[in-house]
Amino acid sequence: MNSEELTELAQQLRVDSVRVADRAGSGHPTSSMSAADLMAALLANHLHYDYDHPGHPGNDRLVFSKGHASPLLYSMYLAAGAIDEEEFLTYRTLGSRLEGHPTPELPWVDVATGSLGQGLPVGVGMALAGQRLGRTPYRVYVLSGDSEMAEGSVWEAIEHAGDQHLDSLTLVIDVNRLGQRGPTRHQRDLDAYGRRLRAFGWHTVEIDGHDMDAVDAAFNEARSTLRKPTAIIAGTRKGRGVAAVEDREGLHGKPLPDAESAIAELGGRRSIRVSVAKPQEPAAATRSPRRTTAVDLPRYEIGDEVATRDAYGKALAALGAGRGDVVVLDGEVSDSTRSEFFAKEHPDRFFECYIAEQQLVAAAVGMQALGHVPYASTFAAFLTRAHDFIRMAAISRASLNLVGSHAGVAIGQDGPSQMGLEDLAMFRAVHGSTVLHPCDANQTAALVLAMHELSGIRYLRTLRGKTPVVYGPDERFPIGGSKVLRRSDKDRVTLIGAGTTVHECLRAADTLADEGVAVRVVDLYSVKPVDERTLQSAAEDTGCLVTVEDHHPQGGIGDAVAEVFSDGRPAPQRLVRLAVGDMPGSATPEEELRAAGIDADSIAAGLRLLLEKVIR
Amino acid sequence: MNSEELTELAQQLRVDSVRVADRAGSGHPTSSMSAADLMAALLANHLHYDYDHPGHPGNDRLVFSKGHASPLLYSMYLAAGAIDEEEFLTYRTLGSRLEGHPTPELPWVDVATGSLGQGLPVGVGMALAGQRLGRTPYRVYVLSGDSEMAEGSVWEAIEHAGDQHLDSLTLVIDVNRLGQRGPTRHQRDLDAYGRRLRAFGWHTVEIDGHDMDAVDAAFNEARSTLRKPTAIIAGTRKGRGVAAVEDREGLHGKPLPDAESAIAELGGRRSIRVSVAKPQEPAAATRSPRRTTAVDLPRYEIGDEVATRDAYGKALAALGAGRGDVVVLDGEVSDSTRSEFFAKEHPDRFFECYIAEQQLVAAAVGMQALGHVPYASTFAAFLTRAHDFIRMAAISRASLNLVGSHAGVAIGQDGPSQMGLEDLAMFRAVHGSTVLHPCDANQTAALVLAMHELSGIRYLRTLRGKTPVVYGPDERFPIGGSKVLRRSDKDRVTLIGAGTTVHECLRAADTLADEGVAVRVVDLYSVKPVDERTLQSAAEDTGCLVTVEDHHPQGGIGDAVAEVFSDGRPAPQRLVRLAVGDMPGSATPEEELRAAGIDADSIAAGLRLLLEKVIR
Repeated sequence: MNSEELTELAQQLRVDSVRVADRAGSGHPTSSMSAADLMAALLANHLHYDYDHPGHPGNDRLVFSKGHASPLLYSMYLAAGAIDEEEFLTYRTLGSRLEGHPTPELPWVDVATGSLGQGLPVGVGMALAGQRLGRTPYRVYVLSGDSEMAEGSVWEAIEHAGDQHLDSLTLVIDVNRLGQRGPTRHQRDLDAYGRRLRAFGWHTVEIDGHDMDAVDAAFNEARSTLRKPTAIIAGTRKGRGVAAVEDREGLHGKPLPDAESAIAELGGRRSIRVSVAKPQEPAAATRSPRRTTAVDLPRYEIGDEVATRDAYGKALAALGAGRGDVVVLDGEVSDSTRSEFFAKEHPDRFFECYIAEQQLVAAAVGMQALGHVPYASTFAAFLTRAHDFIRMAAISRASLNLVGSHAGVAIGQDGPSQMGLEDLAMFRAVHGSTVLHPCDANQTAALVLAMHELSGIRYLRTLRGKTPVVYGPDERFPIGGSKVLRRSDKDRVTLIGAGTTVHECLRAADTLADEGVAVRVVDLYSVKPVDERTLQSAAEDTGCLVTVEDHHPQGGIGDAVAEVFSDGRPAPQRLVRLAVGDMPGSATPEEELRAAGIDADSIAAGLRLLLEKVIR
Repeated sequence: MNSEELTELAQQLRVDSVRVADRAGSGHPTSSMSAADLMAALLANHLHYDYDHPGHPGNDRLVFSKGHASPLLYSMYLAAGAIDEEEFLTYRTLGSRLEGHPTPELPWVDVATGSLGQGLPVGVGMALAGQRLGRTPYRVYVLSGDSEMAEGSVWEAIEHAGDQHLDSLTLVIDVNRLGQRGPTRHQRDLDAYGRRLRAFGWHTVEIDGHDMDAVDAAFNEARSTLRKPTAIIAGTRKGRGVAAVEDREGLHGKPLPDAESAIAELGGRRSIRVSVAKPQEPAAATRSPRRTTAVDLPRYEIGDEVATRDAYGKALAALGAGRGDVVVLDGEVSDSTRSEFFAKEHPDRFFECYIAEQQLVAAAVGMQALGHVPYASTFAAFLTRAHDFIRMAAISRASLNLVGSHAGVAIGQDGPSQMGLEDLAMFRAVHGSTVLHPCDANQTAALVLAMHELSGIRYLRTLRGKTPVVYGPDERFPIGGSKVLRRSDKDRVTLIGAGTTVHECLRAADTLADEGVAVRVVDLYSVKPVDERTLQSAAEDTGCLVTVEDHHPQGGIGDAVAEVFSDGRPAPQRLVRLAVGDMPGSATPEEELRAAGIDADSIAAGLRLLLEKVIR
């Protein structure tokens, strides 16, 4: 399209944004209007996308990081013929795919946005996958607001993209000067963004975002820039085109006061249909299947002492040999998480994300959107850094594996800052998540393989220290299952642990067995979903359940077990929780477990008290 | 000290770092050795600190963001006479204040470090407090590693400090080239850091971090630089001074292979005692008490419709008038969280942090370390962005208030990205936290006041939409309490809600009352600590408890209530949970509540089923 046609298209996008928000009675039309020229040019002259085949591997990716500009995105879909007028008008109504902020309920949306500062980090993951793993070239466009440039996650992404020379990535910053509350920090100072981005190795183009020739040229410049990502820094005006709202404060996130006159001022409704360029290869060229061969997992002998983090790394390396879709990311601690085993064998599919956990998770989200199966690892404690990205990944219906090492006080001397003690609570509350916490090497290996086939957010919690192998290499560990490691008809109480505490529970049970007291022991390796049947049987058989976890008392194994006995299911007579209640310090792993009251001796002492004084 | 003396002191710090890690059998001596020259010069020639009076308001602040260099920090304390040799040797042992990473168990440590990239954001809060609120000048020094410059939170802080012209802030970057796993992204390229920092408005000094004259001059330059924060970017060598480890990979976080010969190579033990300069004012000039007058909270009439976020903002403004120590921070959404009411009345104590939630929480942590009482607010959903900072704040023994608005599906059309549905789970699992969720305006106001006096991390969850006032303005709401809003001798079931769901529970109970079924209703405004007594009475009286929460099923009110019935306390006959189990979309608040099954009609229908089919 020439610039007159593009201008007409942009006005159509504005009109449609205004009318759809007006109809919904909510939404962000002014934030849409500022970026309309930018997106008109992109859609008509630069984007390659087959809306009939959103899975086409050659499709460019467009991430609306400023997800609140959804009226603009949906107006683009309308102009491209991807949706019709009838569906368009369902915006923000019950059951509509056109939500307030975009989600992958729409097939052309790869990831949900709406938590600002996430689009670029995810786009970096997409561009990385395209440039390092892809066989079909595509470009990645991210539309960002100016306010969200304050998010540190954006600078993690800028650093990563510059360092990796991601020239397929174009960031479009809609510098409309106004955030939600009022003026942004840098207001109209385009060069404030420009000099920062250039310092990080980016190519920048600073333009008037309402000068259509400049906009069109900027996209061409981005496409012809090699070895550097490009940022198009576009000065715009919020509410552009309607005098009553243009560049005015206090109008964020509100329909226009008079939509009818605004539409008239914008030149009225139009019905321009854009024929979006398709990728060069035919749609039939969907992603070619990646290598799938038998996975030869490492096998460990019962009684061996192996850290589950080691078992994770070695299983991952084996999985990588058998599954070509596996990619691995790490936050500069692969020597600790042991993802280094994968990195050494499959360097082409290993991504070093340095100490930037938000970028770590976002890159994984971007890669899974393109069909890869990511395993991203760091210390369990530091995954809290990416909580908002994990939350949004669930809304993105993302399928990925997150692995947190160094769980609990059992790490010892390094102290509480390095101890994952909130991770189970965080991951259990993520929508549709799976939460796994193995206690030995064979179990870990089996779960690493099983995770590959699951959907949603899968979390694996691993241990720093060595634990004895208690299962044979052919044992099966279904998701949602558990293992009963000690059992008799005379069990008077059931101990429930996972990870480190399984071994402490076993030792406690053996001590009590020597004293003539039978104790059942359950290994609750699948914390979510949880094995309701086994726990209910244990409650019926023994009356008393004691959970033991290397985690804070809230949100972890104690809560997972208690949840089994809700919703009308009869409760056990007694439910007792042992967990890390006090703030730990620095000490040996054994001392830490004892101080927290979750070592074998403390458990045994607790059971004796319970059996003698409480239950009798 | 002259440069020969400083060099001797630096060697002493190295020797002491080596020997204390050797004795402990763990720790990070090589990361300490690289920064020894920098810290020797700072301690002897630049820092003003009265180690006998850590509460002295004129003390400079020193934050070891690279907390793993704790051997160096403790060696500095030893040199300054703050600790003795006997205590020094307790490093990393059970019960010692000298933990693997520094915590405020030591009176000279303001905040815990060990999760990288947090020291500078906290230091920004300290410098902001000093420059905008303080009457006693002090400088803030942050020692950072080079690896942690990859964390986005560092760039949030750099942006904030540059924008606010924090010339009392000095960042010392120990560019020792090696991270944990291997080389950093920029290795020895000091200017890679320098040009980035300068683009953000910082003054930079690039030096050889082992050239003592250059180091000493750099600190002088920082002190004499006005209107800009200064970064001393120091090229160093990890393990400096011992050939076996200097600048070598694979030696992170390990004692030296041969400590004895290393100490000899470093010139042996020394016993230099540094007389650290004290602040100019006498120690008696401790912080002057801030204004404390009666707080005239807003009062609401029963039946009024008021959003609890509005009540929060107005109560905060009133609290600000009566309490001079209150400071308020917001993440560029003060018009939504309603902290704008405070901002308008007390602009001198309001801090706009823009959309940078990590910096938001970190600034609050820094300010509370200096005696202020922060209230920091953003959407509940976006507080997940700062989870790792909240976790570390608990380890820092920080006292601060965090306020999350827009809780739950009740926000309506904006959709799941904006809905706080994991926040209760996150905050309940924080060590020593208090979690509050009021349902009306008078309750909110009372809790905002009560929070001021608490210690630890306090979380208040507020609502976007209006709810009816159900309590009078003189009602009292103790922390750890609850309110029984419907009660009779014939109650057959107890409904437990908080926030939005209190009102849905009340309507459901009234519907069932019309049908002749008595239902108890408990307002569980204090989610943690929870009112065990009232819940136990309800269980005894009615046998069946039903929790209703606008939150995911895990980690929130259902789990909080279940926890009451553990540890040997008898369980209720039935415990039923209603929560947001499915992924919400965009719809009206009423439709969202209904879709989640937590509106009055769904609750009533559930109760009928329960009473007729299950309990009989």
